[in-house]
Amino acid sequence: MAFNDLFLRACRCEPTERTPIWMMRQAGRYMPEYRAIRQNYDFLQMCKRPELAVEVTLQPVDLIGVDAAILFADILLPLEGMGLDLAFAKGEGPVIHNPVRTLSDVQRLRVSDPAADTGYVMEAIRQLRHELRDKVPLIGFAGAPFTLASYMIEGGSTRAYIKCKSLMWSEPEAWERLMQVTTDTVIQYLLAQIEAGAQAVQVFDSWVGFLSPVDYERSVLPHTTRLIAEVSKAGVPVINFANNATAMLSKVKSAGGDVIGLDWRVDIADAVEWIGPDFAIQGNLDPMTLFAPVEVIDAAARDILEKVGTRPGHIFNLGHGIHKDTDPEHAKALVHSVREHSTRIRSGVTS
Amino acid sequence: MAFNDLFLRACRCEPTERTPIWMMRQAGRYMPEYRAIRQNYDFLQMCKRPELAVEVTLQPVDLIGVDAAILFADILLPLEGMGLDLAFAKGEGPVIHNPVRTLSDVQRLRVSDPAADTGYVMEAIRQLRHELRDKVPLIGFAGAPFTLASYMIEGGSTRAYIKCKSLMWSEPEAWERLMQVTTDTVIQYLLAQIEAGAQAVQVFDSWVGFLSPVDYERSVLPHTTRLIAEVSKAGVPVINFANNATAMLSKVKSAGGDVIGLDWRVDIADAVEWIGPDFAIQGNLDPMTLFAPVEVIDAAARDILEKVGTRPGHIFNLGHGIHKDTDPEHAKALVHSVREHSTRIRSGVTS
Repeated sequence: MAFNDLFLRACRCEPTERTPIWMMRQAGRYMPEYRAIRQNYDFLQMCKRPELAVEVTLQPVDLIGVDAAILFADILLPLEGMGLDLAFAKGEGPVIHNPVRTLSDVQRLRVSDPAADTGYVMEAIRQLRHELRDKVPLIGFAGAPFTLASYMIEGGSTRAYIKCKSLMWSEPEAWERLMQVTTDTVIQYLLAQIEAGAQAVQVFDSWVGFLSPVDYERSVLPHTTRLIAEVSKAGVPVINFANNATAMLSKVKSAGGDVIGLDWRVDIADAVEWIGPDFAIQGNLDPMTLFAPVEVIDAAARDILEKVGTRPGHIFNLGHGIHKDTDPEHAKALVHSVREHSTRIRSGVTS
Repeated sequence: MAFNDLFLRACRCEPTERTPIWMMRQAGRYMPEYRAIRQNYDFLQMCKRPELAVEVTLQPVDLIGVDAAILFADILLPLEGMGLDLAFAKGEGPVIHNPVRTLSDVQRLRVSDPAADTGYVMEAIRQLRHELRDKVPLIGFAGAPFTLASYMIEGGSTRAYIKCKSLMWSEPEAWERLMQVTTDTVIQYLLAQIEAGAQAVQVFDSWVGFLSPVDYERSVLPHTTRLIAEVSKAGVPVINFANNATAMLSKVKSAGGDVIGLDWRVDIADAVEWIGPDFAIQGNLDPMTLFAPVEVIDAAARDILEKVGTRPGHIFNLGHGIHKDTDPEHAKALVHSVREHSTRIRSGVTS
């Protein structure tokens, strides 16, 4: 079987005969094959044992038929090496037992050493590149500095970001130092992933949409920009995904990258115009569409593909991670629809 | 004391000597005076006893110094008259014990009669107009059809909207009928509020930002448009607030109204341009800013006011409801800052 490089070509805005597709969180709980392994290991074990991470990373490639693999891991893994005590409480998501609340808390943090602290990630990547050699490209990823900082400060998930924003507004020195050490960590972490074999990397700013554009521009954008600039030097495509931030897309764009990731809150016809020709575009199907009948899924995929048309540089994806209760058959139906419609559209045939 | 009509003039894009301000959820838990009453009554009692609703509606007018009062009530109140069994579980938000899941569930719903089913709201409005006669205008409000339908289908709060979207995609007839009966209810409810004395009304589409623009346009916009058109005939300003929907602002605008409400996810300088001169604008300070030091609050208010400049038709507000843990002194500080800066800016004096 020939290596499928559609995803990499789309990242570089090169012509493709059809639109590649992968799905955020495609290696995960919606797959019975994942749950079968997961019942024997806790979440951090799944991340830290390369043979397990490799196995679940490969599952959607073989079973769903996506055009790229994304490493199974968690954005919070590099925080352990920074000095944070990370746990995943059952049903409650991540917990950080020693959250960052003061300047002295920040001063105790160190830049994580990717080889020493997250060597298991690099080992999984090396094994995956071997496994995927005749299949599809491997995407690495990391959380963006703001999203990681928000977890470090809040100590877990939140909907209000009061502690995070309060630190940002009240303790600018602590904030800047925290963003610096986090950015340095993410730079090293992503460069190590690329060194180990990741053929593209995605930066997930999952929670940046809770910031106003003014705060984003002042307190976050310089760090994200530095991150993307440093990582881009390694020569593989960088995907800049700022979730729920389309209303400040012009600022998000200025952080750089090769591909702009879109959530589902924007009409992709508008996004194509706003983003312009200098970036590839990834997205933007509402992940809940996969709960609809297959005809509705097909029509929604077709709508997105027709709006993008023959523009080079589109990677089909959901606008957010696939939901754990999704029927895998519906994920497969989406892959089929994207394949069919995009082949027709990109060959210039009208239906 | 002369009646302060700044808010009403700003709604009509008439010149004002300063920018009026009110805050979403300004009558509520962040005020100790509210909590003092609330400890003796449950939430629905607070809504249903006009003397209590009147008292807490007036509290922020007198104590925080806002330029408009908004009726204390809940968007879900009209659902009881439609046939839904509504409760507020302690600490868990609203629960609907007989959610709408099928076409036959929808067929059992009726259009609520505002006088018979929510007469307590109309009585509170009549009393409030008397109390506010030398003070400020009174704003009525309702939930938009989508937001109300989402509660009816989900049976309470959610973050995924799987049941709601599934019905929308799988059962278009049930969806359309549900939106019809809900829209009819909201039209009658808002017209009754205006008849009772509400001098403006706000339509809260709190959760519409979870929809893609395509779904909004196809399944929601026609109903919201009909709602606003019918209510507008009563001749008072209508505020169209679609939360977390700025990336589809052009579609939100097309639903109509006199004032477009903005959350905090958009730079107001961009929004002024996107909205154009035909609407007043309300917003858009991040509500969490009130957790910052007062100098930061002041600078953030000033930034918004300076970006709007002397454009007629700006009503200052938060981009979402004020958080329950907000210090009321910081809310007062915001009112002070808006008053000072907007007076200076609108008088043409540079600082």
